[in-house]
Amino acid sequence: MRGEIIAVGDELTSGRILNTTSSFAAGHLYGAGHDIIAISMVGDEEEAIAAALTRALQRAEFIIVTGGLGATSDDRTNEAVANILERPPTFYPEIFAAICQGDPQPLDCQRAVAQGEHPLAKLAWLPQGAKILKPGARMAGHLLVHDGVPIFFLPGVPHEMRELMLDCVLPMLASWQGGDGKVVRQRIFRVFGLPETEINRRLAPLEGGVVRIGYYPVQPEVHVSLTVTGHEERQVEEAFARAEATIRQALGAFLYGCDAEPMEAVVGRLLREKGLCCAVAESCTGGRIAARLTAVPGSSASFVGGVVAYSNSLKERLLAVPAALLAEHGAVSAPVARAMARGVVRATASEVGVAVTGIAGPSGGSKTKPVGLVYFALAHGEYCQALERRFAGDRSAVQAQSAMTALDLLRRHLAGLPLEGS
Amino acid sequence: MRGEIIAVGDELTSGRILNTTSSFAAGHLYGAGHDIIAISMVGDEEEAIAAALTRALQRAEFIIVTGGLGATSDDRTNEAVANILERPPTFYPEIFAAICQGDPQPLDCQRAVAQGEHPLAKLAWLPQGAKILKPGARMAGHLLVHDGVPIFFLPGVPHEMRELMLDCVLPMLASWQGGDGKVVRQRIFRVFGLPETEINRRLAPLEGGVVRIGYYPVQPEVHVSLTVTGHEERQVEEAFARAEATIRQALGAFLYGCDAEPMEAVVGRLLREKGLCCAVAESCTGGRIAARLTAVPGSSASFVGGVVAYSNSLKERLLAVPAALLAEHGAVSAPVARAMARGVVRATASEVGVAVTGIAGPSGGSKTKPVGLVYFALAHGEYCQALERRFAGDRSAVQAQSAMTALDLLRRHLAGLPLEGS
Repeated sequence: MRGEIIAVGDELTSGRILNTTSSFAAGHLYGAGHDIIAISMVGDEEEAIAAALTRALQRAEFIIVTGGLGATSDDRTNEAVANILERPPTFYPEIFAAICQGDPQPLDCQRAVAQGEHPLAKLAWLPQGAKILKPGARMAGHLLVHDGVPIFFLPGVPHEMRELMLDCVLPMLASWQGGDGKVVRQRIFRVFGLPETEINRRLAPLEGGVVRIGYYPVQPEVHVSLTVTGHEERQVEEAFARAEATIRQALGAFLYGCDAEPMEAVVGRLLREKGLCCAVAESCTGGRIAARLTAVPGSSASFVGGVVAYSNSLKERLLAVPAALLAEHGAVSAPVARAMARGVVRATASEVGVAVTGIAGPSGGSKTKPVGLVYFALAHGEYCQALERRFAGDRSAVQAQSAMTALDLLRRHLAGLPLEGS
Repeated sequence: MRGEIIAVGDELTSGRILNTTSSFAAGHLYGAGHDIIAISMVGDEEEAIAAALTRALQRAEFIIVTGGLGATSDDRTNEAVANILERPPTFYPEIFAAICQGDPQPLDCQRAVAQGEHPLAKLAWLPQGAKILKPGARMAGHLLVHDGVPIFFLPGVPHEMRELMLDCVLPMLASWQGGDGKVVRQRIFRVFGLPETEINRRLAPLEGGVVRIGYYPVQPEVHVSLTVTGHEERQVEEAFARAEATIRQALGAFLYGCDAEPMEAVVGRLLREKGLCCAVAESCTGGRIAARLTAVPGSSASFVGGVVAYSNSLKERLLAVPAALLAEHGAVSAPVARAMARGVVRATASEVGVAVTGIAGPSGGSKTKPVGLVYFALAHGEYCQALERRFAGDRSAVQAQSAMTALDLLRRHLAGLPLEGS
């Protein structure tokens, strides 16, 4: 079904709060085979709520409205809906009972709610015809069916909204008028080292029909989504498997992982699988590789730490890089990268070492060694290999690409893939 | 002015990516005295983009459209706009030149772009009348004025969008307003260590009249915007100066900086001013402090590097923390933090050392040493002081708060402020 989401609240349109609930809802709806035409955020203004709802009713097969259902004066969703849809506010005894249940003085509470004096009294009045989603749950949430279109009203509080979304909205939509029987399969492919346009060129022949491909640059990597939809489970599975095989073939070693597993988690998993322990020696990445590896819970099993050798003296002191080597080749060179990788393996008594040395900019570059020039090295026992790269972009782009390249080097080595290319 | 934001991209309506850019834009626009009627997210569909833009043109005084400006086949914003506003796609030689500049073979590039065969050729075609926001910047971003309404088209890539928002959109809107004689003064106050609600409580008396205050949690810190608007320059300046003085008084040592200067830049500046050189010893922050310090251009002048001593053995090997101390107090303790800080000063021959050791979780906690318990230490010559903190949140929240606290410790020490409190 094609749906629309409307999130209500001044805190959203003033940028005070990030709208995580709509994203949560959209992700689950998309995964369940629905399409979201639009997500709108409007302030607590009756006119803006009305405009958003009116337009959604013109084109959506279902609507989800979040927020503005609370008890304070700035919560205006129910009033706006009562006016737009001409459904006068109606007293709901079930909600009234739920409010009083939690009240220490139920009798006083009854009177206060009935007279509209209770601070929560507003919650007991809903637009006529509303069906409570979770009776007795002590949270807002109801359904109105208007001209055959289900409109779900959910609280703006993230955990309440999520609960109602998973427990009520998704199952109700699935069985709505027998459902439209749509089957959806989706996967995200995580790619590093190929530009988005080149990925697009390689995968474009696959697009169309039941196969949908999306390209999402998440600098410095690119995420590719594959979505197959259809009405027959087996056909969808087959089309999905064919498309996935083609994608894997087209992306080769540049495809480093799938779905929610980031590069650092892939590297951590490979290290644990091989029973190896690793350390890093970072110059221009200044701790970014270590920070990413330690972002993964349980990383201490395969990562001991390392040295941020930002100055030449630390390269000598902590990594035992010979002063003569630094003098002869300069800190930014393949021989120094190799000496750093070997040095960190020795200094930390680990098995695999990765080193990075380069010029992140904006200053420090020269004609022969420009900003963006970075050397990498990987040492493992007797094996030691260096790699040269030239990155574009500002300081932070060079540092991010360098950290990612170092992790990718580690991944490719551990997975037995060529260190560059596909 | 009353504006509207439209964010384009299937990754938003499918819930794959959280829409942080609209929130960023809304926060800054609100802070600058504008009101946002609605924020809409639509997929990469011409029809949906057209519907959102058409409605915005009916009611908004300015419009910001983000995303869908890229070179791949699923980027459709420019095509949609060219059709809706009847502004045929036009070739822009400046963009063409910027594309070719980064190309190793400029002549081939010229031919390929002109013939539409270059993978980036699409970027050189904009709707007729578009004005490029940052000529030569190698990123998308243009302005169309339609029926007197400025429509800003910005990239969906967060850092590019933020840059154009701060450098182009906000100043341009301010002078757009300038047409009606409005004077606006704004400043962002960066706060660490005080919860948003407490900041709100302290500053609430200031709000109202010509003074507008915005609160933006940017975990783990909070940014407070002060905006004063009026029609008379001197009155605005005076009201602004009074409000700023009150804010500084109310926030005390918790106010660490202003406007675009992040914590690591403040620390770097203080180190340079004092002529001191610093090093870090990181356990649970795993390189995050070093990464932040090295994000600042020119940081090598005052930062030598440090050790990521994620394992106990590295704390002994590289920082000379006595094994007996580790055995007696455990790695997560004030004495070990102090030994790490002293150790990294010795190991790196620097003047100031900061150390962090704690339990980031999700595992590794105990009853006496729960997840979120973190010890910090700062050593400077004979001086060595430790600090204990208990942070809430998941692993990444604990790591981020720990890195920020370590930098704040350094800032307070260098600025001669108390190490905690105001």
